[in-house]
Amino acid sequence: MRIVVDAMGSDTFPQPDVQGAVLAAESGKKIILVGQEKIIKEELDKYKPSQRQNIEVVHAQDIISMSDKPSVVGKEKPNSSMHIGMNLVKDGQADAFVTAGNTGAAHAIAMLFTLKRIKGIKRPALSIIFSVYDKPVIILDVGANADAKPEWLVQFALMGSVYANLALELPTPRVALMSNGEEEGKGTQAILETRSLLQKTSLNFIGNIEPKDMHNNTADVIVTDGFTGNILIKTFEASTRYLSNIIREELKASILSTIGALFARSAFNRVRRRVDPSEIGGAPLLGVNGTVIIAHGGSDGFAIKNAINQAEIAAKAGIIEAIRNNIPNIEGE
Amino acid sequence: MRIVVDAMGSDTFPQPDVQGAVLAAESGKKIILVGQEKIIKEELDKYKPSQRQNIEVVHAQDIISMSDKPSVVGKEKPNSSMHIGMNLVKDGQADAFVTAGNTGAAHAIAMLFTLKRIKGIKRPALSIIFSVYDKPVIILDVGANADAKPEWLVQFALMGSVYANLALELPTPRVALMSNGEEEGKGTQAILETRSLLQKTSLNFIGNIEPKDMHNNTADVIVTDGFTGNILIKTFEASTRYLSNIIREELKASILSTIGALFARSAFNRVRRRVDPSEIGGAPLLGVNGTVIIAHGGSDGFAIKNAINQAEIAAKAGIIEAIRNNIPNIEGE
Repeated sequence: MRIVVDAMGSDTFPQPDVQGAVLAAESGKKIILVGQEKIIKEELDKYKPSQRQNIEVVHAQDIISMSDKPSVVGKEKPNSSMHIGMNLVKDGQADAFVTAGNTGAAHAIAMLFTLKRIKGIKRPALSIIFSVYDKPVIILDVGANADAKPEWLVQFALMGSVYANLALELPTPRVALMSNGEEEGKGTQAILETRSLLQKTSLNFIGNIEPKDMHNNTADVIVTDGFTGNILIKTFEASTRYLSNIIREELKASILSTIGALFARSAFNRVRRRVDPSEIGGAPLLGVNGTVIIAHGGSDGFAIKNAINQAEIAAKAGIIEAIRNNIPNIEGE
Repeated sequence: MRIVVDAMGSDTFPQPDVQGAVLAAESGKKIILVGQEKIIKEELDKYKPSQRQNIEVVHAQDIISMSDKPSVVGKEKPNSSMHIGMNLVKDGQADAFVTAGNTGAAHAIAMLFTLKRIKGIKRPALSIIFSVYDKPVIILDVGANADAKPEWLVQFALMGSVYANLALELPTPRVALMSNGEEEGKGTQAILETRSLLQKTSLNFIGNIEPKDMHNNTADVIVTDGFTGNILIKTFEASTRYLSNIIREELKASILSTIGALFARSAFNRVRRRVDPSEIGGAPLLGVNGTVIIAHGGSDGFAIKNAINQAEIAAKAGIIEAIRNNIPNIEGE
């Protein structure tokens, strides 16, 4: 198993990206770091030779930034770490690609320039995996397709279900459709159509859910369009950060509560870890011919290491083969 | 100023609804409680005569429950407290209507059976007012229209702007469009069209915002379709509740942190109040010919009292007149 890691991905590259690669390599994985060779080697030199022995470096001249436009970057920067990294997977020289870089760019480069779509899949979807009370939940699409057709959402349901089954080891994943109410009639026209299509598939479709159901173990796979899904995860992040800030302000407001906060410090650290998306490390881009895991731009080395673990699990699980084989099961009667 | 209060509205009616009315009446407001007379009078009898002197009761036979379908309840229960309450406003016998009942039903009954739309307004919108670091933010639509056309969103922007200006006393409210990214090209086709329409109005339109901008004083009025807006506020509620639960769990996990939590109890109480929507009390249904404030179904008496205050402010501010007069300003060039 060989995993390609984008050394130019994270907001503060190459430090977290290289550190994540080193941590993963220490546990025995073969890692290919892709990006500007000089920068990578300088960073690698900070580690002992024994720590670097499972790491190879492949040069890629172009660096994709977070502000690069997905619609043009694939063409304008053809020698990016994303292009070259994904092509290593495409050519069978590696088993998975991990990046903490520009999500839209990774999506466009995978779909249009390198790995391409799985035959029969209309649109790849970007997912996120939350750990809720220690149980994983996969949500997709969270940003790849702002406007999505009902048939695409049905394919997202299939891909999420396959991933939940094989990579998250959930036997018959419960698939739900995110809506503004649980009742059958709730939702946009597109949601109503998707619901009716999902009912005709052989997936374990349990109906509509609301945002609160993300946190109460109602579903394993949550299907949504990329616009709503993106708003959903950004609202989750923003809301928990806002609440944390308010708690911090109020704890500082009196001496007694400041002392209380000191006593409870380890509890707060555990809370932070439990809502931190970096604990899972990354989320798969599903629907392309290769395992691609996208980590948070703000990842630290620990998060990158977790994303590499996630990539290994996904690659071993045979997700792409399974998606390909299961497409007939969602065609309906 | 006379405010009609739905006595049959909240999840645990009539206690919170009547208590809210009593609290408001004590501060000098004239209140009309509408609902089943016998039930209301029994509840009112728990208070001193001096507390009830500004309260009148109007009988309404039908009770609308949270499970009643908005699409049929208006016709099936024509003598509901919502019908009769809103008609008191329509007929000029009262200045505003407050309910903590079924939001969809209130919307349908206002739009189709009682107050009707303001001339020129395509669809009423349901709003919510958050208090973020002590500054109000109005978000609309949060549930009235799952599928919304760009022209409707422009009208929501106008109505929100008028409300923010007159009722929330913000001189030139900053209007923003909720999207999955701040950049111009981000969003669904409907969002892109709305953005371009909003740029042609005389509103103080500042462009797209993301969910995190709800909490950093970027905008005063946040415009969204009813599906996204509903997901947004439900995700906020769900996320803060989830984080609170995790904090509670972790604080209980050790003796030290349990002691810390006791020391910090008053800080946590202040946090709870700051994220509690009942502090604002209610949110206006905008676009109908009368002031309607909808409070949370789980409101207590204190929240209902705040909603009644909000209703008085809105009615005094002349929102409906201002919306009517400002429609030409959003027609574009």
